[in-house]
Amino acid sequence: MELRQLLQDIYEGRLSVEAALAQLSGSSVADLGFANVDLHRRDRCGFPEVIFCEGKECKWVEGVVRKLSEAGQDCLATRVNQGQADHLAVQFPQAQQDRLARTFWLPAGPPKTATGRVVVITAGTSDLPVAQEAAVTARALGTDALLLADVGVAGIHRLLRHHQQFCRADAIVVVAGMDGALPSVVGGLVDCPVIAVPTSVGYGAAFGGLAPLLTMLNSCSAGVVVVNIDSGFKGGYVAALIARGARKKEGDVRT
Amino acid sequence: MELRQLLQDIYEGRLSVEAALAQLSGSSVADLGFANVDLHRRDRCGFPEVIFCEGKECKWVEGVVRKLSEAGQDCLATRVNQGQADHLAVQFPQAQQDRLARTFWLPAGPPKTATGRVVVITAGTSDLPVAQEAAVTARALGTDALLLADVGVAGIHRLLRHHQQFCRADAIVVVAGMDGALPSVVGGLVDCPVIAVPTSVGYGAAFGGLAPLLTMLNSCSAGVVVVNIDSGFKGGYVAALIARGARKKEGDVRT
Amino acid sequence: MELRQLLQDIYEGRLSVEAALAQLSGSSVADLGFANVDLHRRDRCGFPEVIFCEGKECKWVEGVVRKLSEAGQDCLATRVNQGQADHLAVQFPQAQQDRLARTFWLPAGPPKTATGRVVVITAGTSDLPVAQEAAVTARALGTDALLLADVGVAGIHRLLRHHQQFCRADAIVVVAGMDGALPSVVGGLVDCPVIAVPTSVGYGAAFGGLAPLLTMLNSCSAGVVVVNIDSGFKGGYVAALIARGARKKEGDVRT
Amino acid sequence: MELRQLLQDIYEGRLSVEAALAQLSGSSVADLGFANVDLHRRDRCGFPEVIFCEGKECKWVEGVVRKLSEAGQDCLATRVNQGQADHLAVQFPQAQQDRLARTFWLPAGPPKTATGRVVVITAGTSDLPVAQEAAVTARALGTDALLLADVGVAGIHRLLRHHQQFCRADAIVVVAGMDGALPSVVGGLVDCPVIAVPTSVGYGAAFGGLAPLLTMLNSCSAGVVVVNIDSGFKGGYVAALIARGARKKEGDVRT
Amino acid sequence: MELRQLLQDIYEGRLSVEAALAQLSGSSVADLGFANVDLHRRDRCGFPEVIFCEGKECKWVEGVVRKLSEAGQDCLATRVNQGQADHLAVQFPQAQQDRLARTFWLPAGPPKTATGRVVVITAGTSDLPVAQEAAVTARALGTDALLLADVGVAGIHRLLRHHQQFCRADAIVVVAGMDGALPSVVGGLVDCPVIAVPTSVGYGAAFGGLAPLLTMLNSCSAGVVVVNIDSGFKGGYVAALIARGARKKEGDVRT
Amino acid sequence: MELRQLLQDIYEGRLSVEAALAQLSGSSVADLGFANVDLHRRDRCGFPEVIFCEGKECKWVEGVVRKLSEAGQDCLATRVNQGQADHLAVQFPQAQQDRLARTFWLPAGPPKTATGRVVVITAGTSDLPVAQEAAVTARALGTDALLLADVGVAGIHRLLRHHQQFCRADAIVVVAGMDGALPSVVGGLVDCPVIAVPTSVGYGAAFGGLAPLLTMLNSCSAGVVVVNIDSGFKGGYVAALIARGARKKEGDVRT
Amino acid sequence: MELRQLLQDIYEGRLSVEAALAQLSGSSVADLGFANVDLHRRDRCGFPEVIFCEGKECKWVEGVVRKLSEAGQDCLATRVNQGQADHLAVQFPQAQQDRLARTFWLPAGPPKTATGRVVVITAGTSDLPVAQEAAVTARALGTDALLLADVGVAGIHRLLRHHQQFCRADAIVVVAGMDGALPSVVGGLVDCPVIAVPTSVGYGAAFGGLAPLLTMLNSCSAGVVVVNIDSGFKGGYVAALIARGARKKEGDVRT
Amino acid sequence: MELRQLLQDIYEGRLSVEAALAQLSGSSVADLGFANVDLHRRDRCGFPEVIFCEGKECKWVEGVVRKLSEAGQDCLATRVNQGQADHLAVQFPQAQQDRLARTFWLPAGPPKTATGRVVVITAGTSDLPVAQEAAVTARALGTDALLLADVGVAGIHRLLRHHQQFCRADAIVVVAGMDGALPSVVGGLVDCPVIAVPTSVGYGAAFGGLAPLLTMLNSCSAGVVVVNIDSGFKGGYVAALIARGARKKEGDVRT
Repeated sequence: MELRQLLQDIYEGRLSVEAALAQLSGSSVADLGFANVDLHRRDRCGFPEVIFCEGKECKWVEGVVRKLSEAGQDCLATRVNQGQADHLAVQFPQAQQDRLARTFWLPAGPPKTATGRVVVITAGTSDLPVAQEAAVTARALGTDALLLADVGVAGIHRLLRHHQQFCRADAIVVVAGMDGALPSVVGGLVDCPVIAVPTSVGYGAAFGGLAPLLTMLNSCSAGVVVVNIDSGFKGGYVAALIARGARKKEGDVRT
Repeated sequence: MELRQLLQDIYEGRLSVEAALAQLSGSSVADLGFANVDLHRRDRCGFPEVIFCEGKECKWVEGVVRKLSEAGQDCLATRVNQGQADHLAVQFPQAQQDRLARTFWLPAGPPKTATGRVVVITAGTSDLPVAQEAAVTARALGTDALLLADVGVAGIHRLLRHHQQFCRADAIVVVAGMDGALPSVVGGLVDCPVIAVPTSVGYGAAFGGLAPLLTMLNSCSAGVVVVNIDSGFKGGYVAALIARGARKKEGDVRT
Repeated sequence: MELRQLLQDIYEGRLSVEAALAQLSGSSVADLGFANVDLHRRDRCGFPEVIFCEGKECKWVEGVVRKLSEAGQDCLATRVNQGQADHLAVQFPQAQQDRLARTFWLPAGPPKTATGRVVVITAGTSDLPVAQEAAVTARALGTDALLLADVGVAGIHRLLRHHQQFCRADAIVVVAGMDGALPSVVGGLVDCPVIAVPTSVGYGAAFGGLAPLLTMLNSCSAGVVVVNIDSGFKGGYVAALIARGARKKEGDVRT
Repeated sequence: MELRQLLQDIYEGRLSVEAALAQLSGSSVADLGFANVDLHRRDRCGFPEVIFCEGKECKWVEGVVRKLSEAGQDCLATRVNQGQADHLAVQFPQAQQDRLARTFWLPAGPPKTATGRVVVITAGTSDLPVAQEAAVTARALGTDALLLADVGVAGIHRLLRHHQQFCRADAIVVVAGMDGALPSVVGGLVDCPVIAVPTSVGYGAAFGGLAPLLTMLNSCSAGVVVVNIDSGFKGGYVAALIARGARKKEGDVRT
Repeated sequence: MELRQLLQDIYEGRLSVEAALAQLSGSSVADLGFANVDLHRRDRCGFPEVIFCEGKECKWVEGVVRKLSEAGQDCLATRVNQGQADHLAVQFPQAQQDRLARTFWLPAGPPKTATGRVVVITAGTSDLPVAQEAAVTARALGTDALLLADVGVAGIHRLLRHHQQFCRADAIVVVAGMDGALPSVVGGLVDCPVIAVPTSVGYGAAFGGLAPLLTMLNSCSAGVVVVNIDSGFKGGYVAALIARGARKKEGDVRT
Repeated sequence: MELRQLLQDIYEGRLSVEAALAQLSGSSVADLGFANVDLHRRDRCGFPEVIFCEGKECKWVEGVVRKLSEAGQDCLATRVNQGQADHLAVQFPQAQQDRLARTFWLPAGPPKTATGRVVVITAGTSDLPVAQEAAVTARALGTDALLLADVGVAGIHRLLRHHQQFCRADAIVVVAGMDGALPSVVGGLVDCPVIAVPTSVGYGAAFGGLAPLLTMLNSCSAGVVVVNIDSGFKGGYVAALIARGARKKEGDVRT
Repeated sequence: MELRQLLQDIYEGRLSVEAALAQLSGSSVADLGFANVDLHRRDRCGFPEVIFCEGKECKWVEGVVRKLSEAGQDCLATRVNQGQADHLAVQFPQAQQDRLARTFWLPAGPPKTATGRVVVITAGTSDLPVAQEAAVTARALGTDALLLADVGVAGIHRLLRHHQQFCRADAIVVVAGMDGALPSVVGGLVDCPVIAVPTSVGYGAAFGGLAPLLTMLNSCSAGVVVVNIDSGFKGGYVAALIARGARKKEGDVRT
Repeated sequence: MELRQLLQDIYEGRLSVEAALAQLSGSSVADLGFANVDLHRRDRCGFPEVIFCEGKECKWVEGVVRKLSEAGQDCLATRVNQGQADHLAVQFPQAQQDRLARTFWLPAGPPKTATGRVVVITAGTSDLPVAQEAAVTARALGTDALLLADVGVAGIHRLLRHHQQFCRADAIVVVAGMDGALPSVVGGLVDCPVIAVPTSVGYGAAFGGLAPLLTMLNSCSAGVVVVNIDSGFKGGYVAALIARGARKKEGDVRT
C-alpha cells in the first residue's frame, strides 16, 4: 500500500478522489453475497486465498473458484468431499483433484520450476491422507516436496536410514498421530524448522488428535512448531513459505 | 404482576378467591402433558416462548405451535429438522420456513414496521446457516437485520470497506468459527454492543466450537458478549432486544 | 474516518501529504515503548481505553494513566493489586480507588448526570467483589447502577421480592458462582438483556468458574449473554453501553 | 451373611464343609460364560441385577433375562435398542417394553401395591425419554411415580403452580439439560432429597451434558445429589430406594 | 404457602392488603445489605440456611450468624478459615467449632435425641477432614453419625470386617479421593442409598478430584449418587435428610 | 547391534564397507512406499511389528501382511474392520480371524507350547470385545490366556469366587468401563502386576472411556498400570511380555 | 485364604468359631481410629502397605509407621514433606530418608541381596526427583536399580550410547515431562516392559503433566504402560514386581 | 555423520576400532551424572543445547553452563529464577542476564554481525516478559530482533501504523494472551511465517493460556504456526532459524 504515493498522486491531480477511494476500499474484493473473495491476498501474502470446503454448498465453492480463476489467480481448495469433487470435475475438468488428499488444484498457468526443498514425513501409514494434503499444498506454492511414509519412533532406525533425504531440506513437515513423538526426534537431527501436524489417528485416549497436539506443543526440541489437528494444508503451506523464502532470496542475489 | 391491585380487588370483593388463584397460578400456562406452554412469556419478556425442536417428536412440536397460534401469539421454532419441517408444512402451510436457517416462523398478524437496526456479520461462508438463524430471529422480533458474509480477519480490508454499513447499528451479531477473532476487531471499531456467536466450523483443534467460544469470552474488546456455540438464535434475539430497547424508548419519547 | 473529505482536502490543496499521513497513521496513538495508548478509542467506542493491571509494573500503569489524563480523558483501571494501588495513590491522590472492586477511577471532569438504569444482582455474598467491579464500571460509563446482593435461587422468594427494583432496568448484570443458575431465572422475568458474569466462587467441581460459565452459556432464557469468569468489568461495561444506548437516543429525539 | 451362624452350623455338624463352601463361594452366581449373573443382588441390595444393554449381543441379553426369570426374580433391562427390543419381544412376549424409555420389564409376579411417592420433573420436553426411564424404574421398584414435564426456570411460575404435586414427595427426580438450573430451584422449595439427572440435550457448549452435570454438582441447594448424564435409570432407582425406605419403615412399625 | 387461605383471609377482611403483601414478599428475609438471609428456609427445607464462608469477610459471616441466632434458628457454618474461626470464637464463645472439619455450629437450643442412622466411611486417612465435615453436618441435622476411616479397596477385607456397622444404616456417605472406587463396592453390599463424596486427595492425574468424581458418577452400583468435590457438607446433609425421612415417618406412625 | 564386532570385521577386512553400510542402514526395513515395514522389530523387541488397521486401505494392510509373512515372521493385525477382514480372508485363507476381537492372526509356523500364565478379567459383559483382543494377543505372544467375564465390583463375591483362577497368574489384564473400579480391587488381592484397560462402555459422564482411564491411573493399589482406552491389544501384549519374561528365564535356568 | 482347611478345622473341632471369625474378619488389620493398617497386605501382594503422606498429620504418619514396624514389616513412606520428615527423624532416627525423593524407608531387617534388574531413565534433569522416588522404591522391593539421567529424544544419541546399560533390564522405568516422547523410543529398543511415568515438568501446555501422560498412553510402542503423573513410586513398584517375578521364579527353579 | 568415510578409515586402517566406537557412541556427550550435556547439538541443529532452569538446583545449572562454556560453545539459559540468577551472577559475572526475560546469556566469543530480520509483536503490555524472552533468544541466534509492544486488535490502527516496520521481516513472532487474535490479523498482512506465542495473561476463561493457544491453532491465516504457552524462547528460536536460513543461503550464494 504505497499510501504516500497515492496521496501524492491525488495532491498533484494525477488521481481523482473517486479512483483513490476505489483503490483504498478494495476493488480487490469480489462480493458474491455468500462470499467476499480476497483478490488482494496474493499480493499481500504471496499466495491467493485458499478455499476450505467444509460446510459449503457446491455452488458456493464453484463461485469462488470461478472468481479466482477469472482474476488469473491460482486456485487451491481443500477438504473437498466427494459431492463437491464431482460437481467441480464437471465445471472445471482441467483441474487436478487428489482424492487421497481431498484437494482441488487449478493453476493459473503452466507450472514453474520448483523453488526450495520441503520434506513431508509420516509416523504411520494411516497418516498418509494428511501428509498428502501437505505435499500437494507445498507443491502448489511452488516448492519441491518429497514424502517419506511410516518411519515412526517405535523403529527409530527406519527414520535414521532416510537421514540423507531429509537433512538438507529447507523445512520439514512431520505428520503423526497417537503419541506424536516423531517431530521431537526429527527436530533433534536437523537445523531447519520442523512443522508438526498432529492427526486424529489413534486409540481412545488420543481424543481426536489432542494427545499428539499436546505432545508436539511440548516438544523438547527447540525447532518444532505446531499447526491444527489434521491440517496437512497449513503444514505444507508454512513449510513452503519458509523454503521459498530461503530460495527466493538466494535467487534475488543471483541476478 | 400487579399483585397489590389483585389483592385490593379481592379485598374489595371485585375478584373471587378462585379467580385470583387461577390468575396467580397460571391460567397463562397451557398444559399439554408433554409440555407446559408458557403463554405469559410474551408479557414478561417481550416475546413469546420459542420452540427448540431438537429431540422432539413431530406431534409435540405441532402441539405447541398450535397452542401458541390459538392464543394469538407469534410462533418461532428453531433447529427444525427435515422431518419436522415437512410435517409442519402440511399442518401450517401459511408459515414461513427457512431451510438454511432451519427455522419455522408463523406470525400472529401482518408484519409491523421494523424498529431498530441489527447487523449480522460472518467471518466465513461456512458460518452462513448460523448467521441466517440470527437474522431470521432478529426480524421475527421486529427489527431490521442486515447480513454481511465472509469478511474475516485474514483479509481485514474486507471488513473495513463495510464500515459504513455496520457502524450505525444498534447491536451487531458476529458469527465466527475457527479462531473466532472477528468480534474483537469489530468491537474495537464500534460503540454498540457486539454479540459474538461461536460456530462449530473448523479443523480438529476447534473442538466443536470450543476454540472460538474461548476466544470470544476472552475478547480484548470491552463491548463483546458471548452466547452458546452455533446459537444464531440467541445472538439474534439479544441483538434485537437491544435494538428494540433503543428505538422503543425513542418512540415513546416522540409521542 | 471521513476519508473522502480528507482526500478531497488533499486534492484541493487544503492539506499537505505529510499532514494527511500523520492523521491517517494515528497521531491518536501515544507510543510509550511498553505501551501504545489508544487515544482514539473514546471516539470510536464511546469510552477511553481501560487499563487491565495484572502482570504490569507500577511505572507502566502510571505511565498510561498519566497519558490518558493528559489527553483529557477519563481513566479507569481494573485488577489493581495492593502495591499498584499504593503507588497510584501517591501519584494521583485525587483518584477514587475501591479496594473491594480493586478499581482505580480518575475522571477527566466533574460527574455528569447518570443516563440509563443498570441493576447488578448477585447470587451470594461471596460474589460481591466482582459485582462491585461491575457497578463501579457501569457508573464510570455514566449510568445509574443499583446493587442487590445475595438473592440466589435456593431461596427464590428473595429474588421475587425485589422484582420492582430490577424489572425496569435497561440492562441487568447477574453475578453468580457455583451453579450459576440465577441468570436463567432473572432472564425469565424481564424484557431487557441480562449480562451473566460467572465467578470462581465454589467447591471443587466449579473448576474455577467453569461450571457457572457453562450454565450461563446454556441458559434456557433467550435474553442471557455471557462474559468472562470474574469479569465484573465487562458485565458492567456492556450493561452500561446498552443502558446508555437506550437513553442517548431518547435524548437525541428530544432535541 | 450370617457367617457366625454358618460356622456354628459346621462346628455343630449341621452343615458339611462342601455345602458351606458352596454357600460361601456363591451358588448365588450363575456363570453363563459371557456373564456372571448376580442372583444374590436382590438379597443384599433390595432389587435384582439390572441389565444395561448397550454393546451387548441379543443372545447375551436374552441369556441373562432367562436366568433371572428362572430364578423367580424381577427383570429390568435399560438402554434396549430396537434390535434387542424386537428379539426380546419374541422371546418374552409377556414382558412390558416402553420404547420412549427404551426399557424392558418382566416382573416375577403380579404387581404389589406401590409404596412411597416419587415425583419426576423435567425442565423441557426434550428431556422426556430420560424422565420416562426414571419413572419406569421407580415403578419397577414398587413406588408410585408421577411425571411433570416441561416446567423449566425460564418460566418459573410453571413450576410453582405444581407445588402441591411435588412438595409431598418422598424423593424428587429432576431431569434437565442445557443450563441444568431446575434442581437448584426445586431443592430450595422442598424438604426431601432431590436427585438431579443431567441430559445431553442442548446447543454446543452443553458438551453432551457436561454443562448441566457441573451445574447440578455445584447446586447452591443443599439437598441436591447428582447421577450420570442421561441416567434416568439411576435417578429413578435411588429415588425409589429413598421412598421405599421411608415407607417400609413406616410399614414395619404399623405391624 | 397456604395461598388460598391467605386470599380467603383478605377476602373476608381478616387480613389487610399491606399485611398480605408483607407476608408474600418475604418478611422472612433479613436484608443486611451484603446478604439477604433466608429465614424461611427452615420451614421450606427442614433446616436453616447454612453459611459457606469462603471469600467472605469476618463481619459478613458474623452478621449472618447473629441474624439466624436472633431468629431462634440453628446456625451451621462451613469452610471456616482460621481468621474467621478466631473472630467467631470471640463473638460466639458458646458455639462449637471443629478445626479438622472447619465447621462452626451454634444450635438454637439443647440437643435433641438423634433420629436416623448415618455412617460415614473414608477410603483413606487423608480423606478425614472432608469426612468429619460430613459427620458434623449429619449430627447438626439431628441424626446419629458414625465414622469409619481408612477402609479403601486395596485391602477389601478392612471394609468387609465392618459390615455389621454399616449395613443397617439409613444412608451411607462414602468419602474417597484417588480412584474413588469405594462407593461402588459399598453400594453393592447394602440396600440403602450411598452418597459418594470425591476428595481432591491424590497424585497429578486426580486433577483436583475430577478423577474420583467421574468414577463415582459412573458407579456400576445403582444406589450411588454423587455430590461436589470435597463437599462433606452436602454428603452429610443429604444422608441426614434421608435418615430423618425414614425415621420421622416411622415416628409419625407410632403416635 | 554388535557394532564392535562389525567394525572389527571391517578392520580385519572380513566385511566390505558397502556391506557394512547396508547392514547398518537397515536391510531390515522393507520400504513399500506407503509403509516402511520394520523387519528387525522381532529381534529387538521379541515380537514382530503388529498392524493397526484403522484408516488404512485394504491393499496397504495386505501389503504389510505379505511382507511380514514372506520374511517368515508371525503376523498379527488389530482393529480389522469388516471390509478389511473380507479382503484378507480371500488373500490369506489360512489366517485366523476373530470377529469379536476384530483381529487377524497369521502365524509363521505351527503353534509352540504356551509359556507363562495370563488372566484376562472383565467387569461387565459389554467389555468382552476388548477383553477378547487382549486374550488373542496374549496367545499370539505364546502365553496361556484365560478369560473371566462379568465379575465387576457391584457384586464383589463374583470376583472372590474365582480367586483360585487368577491368583497364580504371572500377569493379569483387567478390562473395565464405567467406574473402572475393578483393577484396584484385583490389585489388592494379588502379587503380580495388573494391566488395567479402560473401555469406552458407559453412560455420558464416562466421556468415551476417560472416566475409567482416570480411575485406573489413580488406583490406590500399587501394582496397577494402565494402557490406552479400548486397547485390549496393548493390555494383552504387556501381560504376555511379563509372563514370558518370568517363564523364559525359568526355562533358561532349566537347561 | 485356605478356606476349605479352615472350615475343615472347625468341622473337626480343631478351631473354635470365635477364632475362625477373628481369622476371617481380619486380625490382620490394626485399627488406629484414623487408620486401618492392612497388616495382611504383605502376604497378599508381596510388599507391606506403603504410606502416602500428603494431607496427613505427623502423628498419623508416625502411628502407622510404628504399627508396621512393631509387626516386623518393612515400612516405606512417600511424599514426605519437610515437617513430616523432621518429625519422623526424631521418632525413628534409624530410618533412611531421601530428601530429593521425599521418601522414608525403615526396613524390618538387614538388606537382602538384590534380585532382578530395574533401570530408571529420565528425559531431563528436572525429572530427577520423580526418578529418584522410583529408584528408592525399586530398591526397597529388593531389586537392583540403576538411574540414567537426562537422555531425552532431542539428542537421541545420548540414549543410544547407554544401550548396553538398559537393554538387559528386566523392566525399565522411563520418567519424562514435556513431550513425554522418550518411552516410545526406549520401547522400540528393548524386549522388556517399559513403565512410563509422566512428570509435571514443562511449559504451560503441559498442563501439569497431562501432555506427557497422553503421549505415553498413546505410545506407538506396544510394550509401554503408564502410571500416574509424578508417581515415581508406582513406576518403581511395578518395575520391581516384574523384575522380582522374573528372578524369583528363576531362583525357585535353581533349588 | 559421514559414516561411509569413518568406515573407510577403519577399513584402510587409518582409524582404530576403539577410536571409531568413541566417535560413534558420543564423545560429544558430557556425562555429569545429573545431566548428559549434548555437545554435538550445535553441529546437528545449528545452536548449542539451551538450559531450561525450572525445577533444577543451582549447582546443576552451573554445571551445565560450565561444561558448555569449557567446550567453547554459546550458552543460553531460560526460566532463570531469582535464586539461580544470583548464583550464576557470582559464578559467571561476565554473562548477560535479563530479569524481565529471565534469561542468562554467556556467548563463547565476541558478537557477530546480525543475520536476518525478526520482529516480535505483543498484543498487550502484560505480554512483555514473554516477548522479551523471544527477542533475547532471537538475538542469541545471531539475528536482528525488533520489539513492538501493545498493538492488539481492539485498536487495529495501532498495528497498521507499524506496517512498514514488520512487513519486511523474515519471520514475525506474535505474543498474545486473552483472545489471542493478533496473529491472525498479522498473518493476513505479510508474506513471511508468523510464529504465534500464547501467554497465560487474562481473566478466568483464558484457563492459563489455553484460550489464546486454541485461537492461534485455529487461525484463519494460513501462515501462522504455534508454540507452547508463554514459550517466548521457542518463538524466538524458530523465527531466528527461519531468518538465518533465508540469509545464510543468500550469503552462500554471494561467495
